[in-house]
Amino acid sequence: MSLVTAEMSISLDGYYAGPRSDETDWMKSPEALGFFRLTRWVISAQAWRERMGYAGGERNVNSEVAAASFARNGAYVMGRRMADGGLGPWGEEPPFHAPVFVVTHRSQETVQRKGGTSFTYVTDGVASAIEQARVAANGKNVQISGGGSTIQRALAEGLLDELTLHVAPVLLGDGMRLFDPVALGLGVGEGLELTPEKVVDTEDVTHLTYRVGKQTPLFLDDRGRSEGEA
Amino acid sequence: MSLVTAEMSISLDGYYAGPRSDETDWMKSPEALGFFRLTRWVISAQAWRERMGYAGGERNVNSEVAAASFARNGAYVMGRRMADGGLGPWGEEPPFHAPVFVVTHRSQETVQRKGGTSFTYVTDGVASAIEQARVAANGKNVQISGGGSTIQRALAEGLLDELTLHVAPVLLGDGMRLFDPVALGLGVGEGLELTPEKVVDTEDVTHLTYRVGKQTPLFLDDRGRSEGEA
Repeated sequence: MSLVTAEMSISLDGYYAGPRSDETDWMKSPEALGFFRLTRWVISAQAWRERMGYAGGERNVNSEVAAASFARNGAYVMGRRMADGGLGPWGEEPPFHAPVFVVTHRSQETVQRKGGTSFTYVTDGVASAIEQARVAANGKNVQISGGGSTIQRALAEGLLDELTLHVAPVLLGDGMRLFDPVALGLGVGEGLELTPEKVVDTEDVTHLTYRVGKQTPLFLDDRGRSEGEA
Repeated sequence: MSLVTAEMSISLDGYYAGPRSDETDWMKSPEALGFFRLTRWVISAQAWRERMGYAGGERNVNSEVAAASFARNGAYVMGRRMADGGLGPWGEEPPFHAPVFVVTHRSQETVQRKGGTSFTYVTDGVASAIEQARVAANGKNVQISGGGSTIQRALAEGLLDELTLHVAPVLLGDGMRLFDPVALGLGVGEGLELTPEKVVDTEDVTHLTYRVGKQTPLFLDDRGRSEGEA
């Protein structure tokens, strides 16, 4: 069955990049400093480097994690900011090798690239982009690649089946938060429950995969106090 | 060797309790609702219940995790708010069975309880409380039990050797944050590096243990771009 998944590299304190700033050269921004610390595991991975057309890289568990993700996905969804930022660096043959649906307010012609990657611009919301991606994925998974706000929108709208967090062992103290209280839209006394599905533990990063459940009211489960006094 | 450790149950979005509110009955507060969701794994654990004098509980991996923690600790450090909130519910024989050093601004006589637990009030800061606990621990570990602000102070002052996060698979969207940007005191372009030591994976909660490193400048490690073009 085709699942809608999302993946993000985050710090132990929940950021997926450093803080936004006025720096016009993104590569020199605090945002990039944080981003490259958090994605070091995948940038170093042979499977990812191969897809990017880069030589070398480590053939390790992290590389297997990256390869498995590429293999499962039949189409991608991403936000406009990520697509605009990536189109240059990804070059003539972007790493996706599959159709990418970009959630945007500004309509644009579809961009075709080598290796089976295309960028189709969707102006009627993330749910529509996911639906178009699901058709294109032909039974494989649809992965929401980012950025954080697009993943949060999918979470808030209940569109996500599975979430993988690549938790880098670092505290950044500030930056762009994957789980923004407002964007998530949870009420007081509500929680969004998940189910742990898989953990892959390496010395560089901890890969946590969850099945995404529903927003449910929290209840006072004080088993230790109200029941079973010895 | 005696390590200074800290443990906290947190949500996947980084909260250790729900949000503070004006509710005077803590058990009816949103803070408690979140807290009891996050600590459900340990309240259900036989080893913890036994220490609390409660009957029943699950004999599972989570119970082993709780038992191992009690066994390693020779003394505890905690904040005033946690001690004040706990002294009633912990009863005549609190679960620690070891000396507890309470970081506070208000001096108070030491409180003696059954089972080897005492509460000594320390007015000259968390570093001093840790030093006193280290002597009392007699070669075993000193555990900072909480609350969040006391753990953050120890982290910010570089006093923590090991950090264990019991990550509950739930998003709360709001609440008391374990890693507060201001309390942590990291500058822009700095990170606090940790080293993954151990992962214990259960269906209720994921136990992540890290060795705590140092605050270091982040560097732009864009290996994928600046090196090794194929």
